[in-house]
Parts: sequence; C-alpha cells; structure tokens
Amino acid sequence: MDEKNISRAVIRRLPRYYRYLGELLEEGVERISSNELSSKMHVTASQIRQDLNNFGGFGQQGYGYNVPYLYTEIGKILGLDHMHHMIIIGAGNLGQALANYVQFEKRGFMVVGIFDINPVLKGISIRGNEIRMMNELPEFLRTNDVQIAALTLPKSNAAETAKILVENGIKAIWNFAHLDLSVPEDVIVENVHLSESLMRLSYNLNRYVTEHKK
Amino acid sequence: MDEKNISRAVIRRLPRYYRYLGELLEEGVERISSNELSSKMHVTASQIRQDLNNFGGFGQQGYGYNVPYLYTEIGKILGLDHMHHMIIIGAGNLGQALANYVQFEKRGFMVVGIFDINPVLKGISIRGNEIRMMNELPEFLRTNDVQIAALTLPKSNAAETAKILVENGIKAIWNFAHLDLSVPEDVIVENVHLSESLMRLSYNLNRYVTEHKK
Repeated sequence: MDEKNISRAVIRRLPRYYRYLGELLEEGVERISSNELSSKMHVTASQIRQDLNNFGGFGQQGYGYNVPYLYTEIGKILGLDHMHHMIIIGAGNLGQALANYVQFEKRGFMVVGIFDINPVLKGISIRGNEIRMMNELPEFLRTNDVQIAALTLPKSNAAETAKILVENGIKAIWNFAHLDLSVPEDVIVENVHLSESLMRLSYNLNRYVTEHKK
Repeated sequence: MDEKNISRAVIRRLPRYYRYLGELLEEGVERISSNELSSKMHVTASQIRQDLNNFGGFGQQGYGYNVPYLYTEIGKILGLDHMHHMIIIGAGNLGQALANYVQFEKRGFMVVGIFDINPVLKGISIRGNEIRMMNELPEFLRTNDVQIAALTLPKSNAAETAKILVENGIKAIWNFAHLDLSVPEDVIVENVHLSESLMRLSYNLNRYVTEHKK
C-alpha cells in the first residue's frame, strides 16, 4: 500500500470514518454501501468512494464495504493496531482529563507517566500513575519505552520541556500549549489549540449574527 | 468588508495570525513586513500577503503591516471585539480545565455558568461559578444572556443536551463529545475531537517509523 500520495485532507477524515465504522460494528453491521455511509456521515457518496479508494479495493460493486475489514485496515493505517505508550507533562485539569480518559487506552494509547513541577502534586495517583516531578523525566525516558508526550502545561514552560523531550528521544508531541514548537524535522507535533478553536466558533457566530441583521 | 468569499482555509489560519500579532504587540512591535512575519510564522510571505489581502488594504508597499491595526481588525473579524457569555455542560476534569482557563476571559469569552448531573458537584465553586444541576439549565438560559455552550460531557448524554440547548436559544456549541451533533442549520458547532487528533498523531508517527525502516 502506497500511502505517500494520500492527501492531508483524506488523512484528516480517516479518524471520522474509523469512528463511524466502529459504531456500525458495535451495532453488528457487517457491510454497508457508500450511499448508506453517506447518509449517516453527511458526506457525499462520491467523496466516500474517492477517500476510501486511496487505500485500495475495500469496496466491491454491488456489495458495498466490508465493515470489519475496512475498520481493521483503517485502524492499521492510523497505527491503532499496536500499543503506544504516552506520558503527560502537566498534571493540571487538562492533563488529568487526558489521564482519566479511558477511551484513549481502548484505542491503544496507554498513559505510562504523568509529570508536573508542582511538589504538592507529587505522588498523587491518577488511574494508577503516580505524578512524578519534572526532574525525573530524563531518567524516566531513558528507562521506559515512550512514544508520545502530551504537553498540557503553560505556554511559558512548553518550549523548554519540548527540548528535554526531544533530547531524550521522543518523536511525537501532542501539544496543547498555545505556541508553535520548534522541533527537528523528524519529530511530529500535533497541536490542539483550544483558543483557536474557540475563535473559529466566535467567527462563525459573529458572521451569522451579522448576516441576519441585514 | 465582504467576508462571504473568504475561504474556510483562510479563516482557519486567522487565529494563528491573531496570536502572532498579539505577541508582536506585547513586544512593542508597531509594524512588520510580510517577509519578517513569514520567517516568524514559517508560512511563505506570498501566503501571508494572499491571506491578509482578503481583508483589504492592511499592508502598505514599503511600510509593511501596521501591527496594532491588523490585530484589531482581525480581532473584529473573529468577533473578539465584544464579550461572549459561555456556559459549560459537564464539570469533569475537562469542563473544569475550560472554566479555569483565564486566557479565554481575556479574549472576551466569559464563563457564566457550569452544569453537571452529578449531585456531589452541586454548589462547588469554580472561579466564582457554582456548579448547577442540569435541571436548572432551561430556566438559566431563559433568564441569562448566553451565546456559547461548551459540551464537556460523555457522548451518551451529548445529543439530548444539545437538543435542550437549541430549544432554549443557544446558537453556538463548542462540542468536545465524540459524536457529530444534529442541530438546525442556524446553530454553529465547533468540534474538538481529541481522539481524532491523537489518531492523526499516531498516523504520522506510524508513517514516519515505517518509512525509516525501509
């Protein structure tokens, strides 16, 4: 399977396909046509066919898509067929929310460590992980197999923390701090900028109100 | 200013411009060329000129962009020039993280109410807002001016809650629950699907590892 030419837009949509297929599986649905999937997902059937064709013959004329097969294959493409170990840096509300979210573990993302600089938090256990202090981080990364670090700390500490992570071999950062990290090319950063999401909501609301005043 | 033809891609980028311009303002920078902004933001200068041209003559040849003016104008476009009242439905870790995030208030998003179904949480105060029970929600919406509702509750309760919000006049939902809400056309939904973000990270990590094994 050649994934190199798959557009970012398609990749962005894959998790949503995965979610819908997972729900169909739970309902015991074994196969589905692009038209049925289209009406469920509010995406055109031609878009669905185009997107899923990227991954080769999943659909069969007159039969539709084989739901368990498609679910498994998209899962593999998304790297969900094996376990990832994740640490969380910043044990505030957001970090604790991520640590407590059982769905991540079901998808293969296992929280193996939580770090903070606040000594008051030291040793508090969140779903079996005791909060560690930041000075333990380099040693922890040397002695544990960790692929992903979630940054749920204030902007002011994020750049320095990212540096420590990269120096200790982390190749994937899930960044909630509201800044763009400077990292080497081989380090993957996925940003969740909540303020920016809220501004897009505000933009659309503002635009809607303006248009309806006319 | 005609905003109708501005592409979604440009809109998606505006909050990031706003953030960089805000940082420049804090540093006392009064004007900046598209080239300088380009090297800061790691976006091509031509992309910057194209994006900002959408909003009419902000840039002047040989002078560059007037930072305070551009910041203010983009703020207006994003609807940040007036206060929005927001409620949070679901007072778990994520809801509390949003309620505690002071940056939102600085941007004009003021949390005026927090709701949950768990009676244990009733009356607990988060930055001056006492957690209310869900059965108080309709009355609260009738007697308070609320524009935005953040949904930080389990997927299983989200659809029903969105229905109550819409029936009581909410026009903007910031949805963290991992499902697509069915709402009337005039209701704006901005989704933050953390699982999907994590899957994109996993996809990119997986792809990187695969390519480097070759």
